[in-house]
Amino acid sequence: MRQILLASACALLLSGAAAASQPDPLPSWNAGPAKAAIEDFVRTTTTPASHDFVPQAERVATFDQDGTLWVEQPIYSQVMYCFERVPQVVKAHPELAGREPFKTVLSGNRGAIAHLRMPDLLQIAAATLTGMTVDEFNTSVKAWIATARDPRWHRHYTELTYQPMQEVLKYLRANGYKTYIVTGGGQDFVRAYAEQTYGIPPEQIVGSVGGTKFSGKDGEPVLLKEPKLLLNDDHAGKAEGIHMMIGRRPYAAFGNSLGDQEMLQYTQAGPGARLEMLVLHDDAKREYAYGPAQGLRDSKVGSFPQLLYDTAHKNGWTVISMKQDWKTIFAFPE
Amino acid sequence: MRQILLASACALLLSGAAAASQPDPLPSWNAGPAKAAIEDFVRTTTTPASHDFVPQAERVATFDQDGTLWVEQPIYSQVMYCFERVPQVVKAHPELAGREPFKTVLSGNRGAIAHLRMPDLLQIAAATLTGMTVDEFNTSVKAWIATARDPRWHRHYTELTYQPMQEVLKYLRANGYKTYIVTGGGQDFVRAYAEQTYGIPPEQIVGSVGGTKFSGKDGEPVLLKEPKLLLNDDHAGKAEGIHMMIGRRPYAAFGNSLGDQEMLQYTQAGPGARLEMLVLHDDAKREYAYGPAQGLRDSKVGSFPQLLYDTAHKNGWTVISMKQDWKTIFAFPE
Repeated sequence: MRQILLASACALLLSGAAAASQPDPLPSWNAGPAKAAIEDFVRTTTTPASHDFVPQAERVATFDQDGTLWVEQPIYSQVMYCFERVPQVVKAHPELAGREPFKTVLSGNRGAIAHLRMPDLLQIAAATLTGMTVDEFNTSVKAWIATARDPRWHRHYTELTYQPMQEVLKYLRANGYKTYIVTGGGQDFVRAYAEQTYGIPPEQIVGSVGGTKFSGKDGEPVLLKEPKLLLNDDHAGKAEGIHMMIGRRPYAAFGNSLGDQEMLQYTQAGPGARLEMLVLHDDAKREYAYGPAQGLRDSKVGSFPQLLYDTAHKNGWTVISMKQDWKTIFAFPE
Repeated sequence: MRQILLASACALLLSGAAAASQPDPLPSWNAGPAKAAIEDFVRTTTTPASHDFVPQAERVATFDQDGTLWVEQPIYSQVMYCFERVPQVVKAHPELAGREPFKTVLSGNRGAIAHLRMPDLLQIAAATLTGMTVDEFNTSVKAWIATARDPRWHRHYTELTYQPMQEVLKYLRANGYKTYIVTGGGQDFVRAYAEQTYGIPPEQIVGSVGGTKFSGKDGEPVLLKEPKLLLNDDHAGKAEGIHMMIGRRPYAAFGNSLGDQEMLQYTQAGPGARLEMLVLHDDAKREYAYGPAQGLRDSKVGSFPQLLYDTAHKNGWTVISMKQDWKTIFAFPE
């Protein structure tokens, strides 16, 4: 009897040691349905004996960026980039200084800037995101992202990525998944920092695509960025962009807003085990609370209205509560 | 002295054995400037101590398909697919049977078919390449490519890939290069067989892109192929398509026609060691001879006119002579 007890004790100790040697790949997640859904999905799709096993070449996971991988409030970082680039544009084209909407942006009047309307924003986007070579743009974004800071935490935007989502990216990659960003933001903008920030290379960034024009400027062949939208990578455009850029249907998709709905629907419509998740911003203290967490029908950016919440429940998508599911939000001390 | 001789003999034998244990990665290539250019490029860009060393993540090589990886004469295989699909289309839409250009295609009159003009071909392309879901199209192309045979060798089109180029693809991949197809052909068409034929996955096929439309057909979300051209992946479109789909400038590019010129220029304009190669069709016996090999200023398909030949020499691009540089053309016995 004592020997049996001893053997059991040893077995327990050994199994404990084995568990300890395989650290939790998602340490920033609290135990709960969201964490379990991710772990179950990985187990189901990567265990060779599983009915829903997915060959490694087909393992594709797609992630929205703004509001899913990093903070999108109070304003998208790419819009901040555009605003902060206006002085340089005006320096090169002084005639714009007295012209709207550039005049308002230059005034620094936050209230007036917040009231700029979509045609104004598009004019600013065209002036700040096009007209240079793709290499010049890449250099400019890299320089900005290395220095710019957000208005609340006064941190680099790349520090405002969600630690739990960084763990999901790494966990999926460690299990043979190719991770893609599928963003409404500019493809070239996100490519400039995504490799360093998320470990996701340029060829795995699907974003809104502006046209380029091959040109022999100064005798050297270059690609000039043009004010022409080839793909609006939002809503249906996310499913269409995934097909265009990847050519495979994702097995897992993560989003946080109405614009991600079609990507999740497209993912779910494939055969076998699929994972669809939505990040709910319900943590006003550690991040922000908006959408259904605030009882809002719609919010200014990154809308996650009641409608999406209802769709998620109807379709069996898993909602991630930042407040409940995430032990920590950021890698830096809160 | 005898011991020294013995030692030398042993060293020779051993080095011979070492060489034998590293088989030639390009056995279908004759020794010459083309083979040497490929080997030098790989050595230079993958030897860590080399001044032109390229980190693995940046190793991108792009290949035109028609006329570069496989036979493009007497007609592009995708055009054959379109023609051979016409009866099915007419079955679904009987009113087309008496209408041109469908009437001509249905007649089977080769002379008349050969005289169809671009607007006719575009009408046939729209009728045969769009209107179905991307999954239905993929299934259709897979079924066709598994059975269709070319008119000269009576082989599957996928057997008409050039063995020496298959070796280059494998050799580059073995040295950390990501290999991409950059084709004027339809992206979805080539994706249907490229993984099996070249070992190149769907996400590494850059081709002419037709629009898709996300739709809830029969309640299931699907992507419908639309008669809308998003990217004409030829000439300047190849450089633009590479930026859109890969976001990195290639280190090596292979083509065979005027439509590949901008891709090679864009590749060459990057810093460090780059490789630009053009396949010259000068082997009427084993394959075809066209372009400058025939003294033609232009040829009907896959044009490699004197102009391109001159550009290649001016820019220092390496021309691959099928006749001189390739020991064998195909994997099947000639």
